[in-house]
Amino acid sequence: MARIALDAMGGDHAPQATVAGALLALAELDPAHSIQLVGQTAVVEDALRSLLDGELGAYGRHRDRLSIVEAPEIIEMTDKPSAAVRGKPHSSMAVGLRLQTEGLSDAFVSAGSTGAQMAASMVLLRLHAGLKRPAIVTLFPSSRKTVAVLDSGANVDCSAEELVQFARLGATYAECVLGRSNPAVGLLSIGEEPEKGNAVTKETHQLLQQSGLNFIGNVEGRDLPAGGTEHQAVDVVVCDGFVGNVILKFYEGVAPLIMDTLRKAGVDADQLEESLKHLDYSEHGGAPLLGVRGVSIIAHGKSSPRAIKNALKVAAQAVTSGMNEQIGQRLGVAAENAA
Amino acid sequence: MARIALDAMGGDHAPQATVAGALLALAELDPAHSIQLVGQTAVVEDALRSLLDGELGAYGRHRDRLSIVEAPEIIEMTDKPSAAVRGKPHSSMAVGLRLQTEGLSDAFVSAGSTGAQMAASMVLLRLHAGLKRPAIVTLFPSSRKTVAVLDSGANVDCSAEELVQFARLGATYAECVLGRSNPAVGLLSIGEEPEKGNAVTKETHQLLQQSGLNFIGNVEGRDLPAGGTEHQAVDVVVCDGFVGNVILKFYEGVAPLIMDTLRKAGVDADQLEESLKHLDYSEHGGAPLLGVRGVSIIAHGKSSPRAIKNALKVAAQAVTSGMNEQIGQRLGVAAENAA
Repeated sequence: MARIALDAMGGDHAPQATVAGALLALAELDPAHSIQLVGQTAVVEDALRSLLDGELGAYGRHRDRLSIVEAPEIIEMTDKPSAAVRGKPHSSMAVGLRLQTEGLSDAFVSAGSTGAQMAASMVLLRLHAGLKRPAIVTLFPSSRKTVAVLDSGANVDCSAEELVQFARLGATYAECVLGRSNPAVGLLSIGEEPEKGNAVTKETHQLLQQSGLNFIGNVEGRDLPAGGTEHQAVDVVVCDGFVGNVILKFYEGVAPLIMDTLRKAGVDADQLEESLKHLDYSEHGGAPLLGVRGVSIIAHGKSSPRAIKNALKVAAQAVTSGMNEQIGQRLGVAAENAA
Repeated sequence: MARIALDAMGGDHAPQATVAGALLALAELDPAHSIQLVGQTAVVEDALRSLLDGELGAYGRHRDRLSIVEAPEIIEMTDKPSAAVRGKPHSSMAVGLRLQTEGLSDAFVSAGSTGAQMAASMVLLRLHAGLKRPAIVTLFPSSRKTVAVLDSGANVDCSAEELVQFARLGATYAECVLGRSNPAVGLLSIGEEPEKGNAVTKETHQLLQQSGLNFIGNVEGRDLPAGGTEHQAVDVVVCDGFVGNVILKFYEGVAPLIMDTLRKAGVDADQLEESLKHLDYSEHGGAPLLGVRGVSIIAHGKSSPRAIKNALKVAAQAVTSGMNEQIGQRLGVAAENAA
């Protein structure tokens, strides 16, 4: 069973979307799971009441697996990332993450400021031994299976050692949470050959070959939507957070462009939406921040109730699969092997 | 009038696709333009004869604007980039480019090895004064106007000074060839704020603010398909060739993924193809290699006759607009201002 803390105040559509997402999730999650709504009690109660009196009336039977944890302060999107750590210690983000360090919760989900969530997660949950930075992993839809891409925005100017750590984090995630056995790891570059790429990528290629991971070599931009190269599927793709973030946002923008074009050409809008649903990465829910000692799931600021529901399901799966413990264990083994 | 040399032997579908593309181009170009087919004379003549005897029989009236220039050697895709310079001085690539330095031609187009074309262009045509590297500019379709992205693969690990030079090259290109007045230049990064991005991007941002260019600030991945930010359209987007190449190839791969998905969902295939045609970047033809003293247009290795035709039209426009002279002039002015 998992106790999942949800930042009820985080995101563009909070608290309605967050509270609604919690109710939707409870209806789908194993009954042993519970959700802690963290925020200003009166505001959260209001939102909950209006949803249960209205469109989500049928979800009242899940009410007893929902608790409210008071957090008087709110992190604004204009706050600095350090706000959740020093400036507002009683924010929903700080309180929600602290529940985990106090043994009162197993996971945290927020659609609030990504920078603040990262900073607070690093300070409050701390990193696994030997890690320099956490990484955000995002699932990309593809022609084959979804591909876990990391880092997708937490780190720029990464060293080769950091990229190898991301590969290790991603492989553990793919195995524990996505259920891939012996996950195939690719390194994002501009050509298949080991000598293609920028300086850091070439150095990383060499290190990955000796990492003990199932490293399949360089992959190119086109291999992301294809889910691998012509010859081999890929489960995890490693890149620095600058490239990862640019591609992720590019992807977010391309789909609407194509949809608009087709709609103007007279293709039925409902048919488009329905058939492209599995390409919508918000369907896959939140992006785990890997490397911290605990579970911290980053949801999109624009999250709908369905996106929040999916992020909560990602959190539940991370907890029940023992992802965090597995990461700690594997990083420890890798460190021993290197010593 | 422009005399355009075409590497008849370059590309996956040469010489059929290249010779056919030349015939298609002649039918659309101003009658003052002519094309020089560079390659093994017998092979090119065979291809030309079979096309004029067959499907392109109606194009025979353009035959007199077509000449054949003998080049006995062929650059293979497995050859090193330096092959065209040292190893095979009589290749279609070396011969085609040398026509320009001898004043016998105004532009060169090839769908052969990009690395070889770059190396040979730098050595044979040479770079404009003050430039360290040439840059490949690619046109991205967008919801607004097409966006010129550079560098899209010629350079990794770029310095801030190099990125500023790319911005200058791109702005001149946008003005001369795309007809944009006072083109808006954006810097690809992971957030709008000047302090977002990796070290090189942050330094470049500062330099671009003092460059005299119409610099609109950072743009994000999503602004490429959108053709600009929420508030402002963008004509030119600058990034290093690692990021540019990854995005370009990602884009190449996303469209088929979405098409496949929709086709499986029962959307009519012909309707899809017709309506997405303007999103197909091969429609826009070749990618100019900017910075060399002359015109060298890089076409996709998989170029169809239509793609070759479009690349030849890009070459013609580069010549008639005086792109090369404009670039030389502006780089000179920028150097004087900096001195």
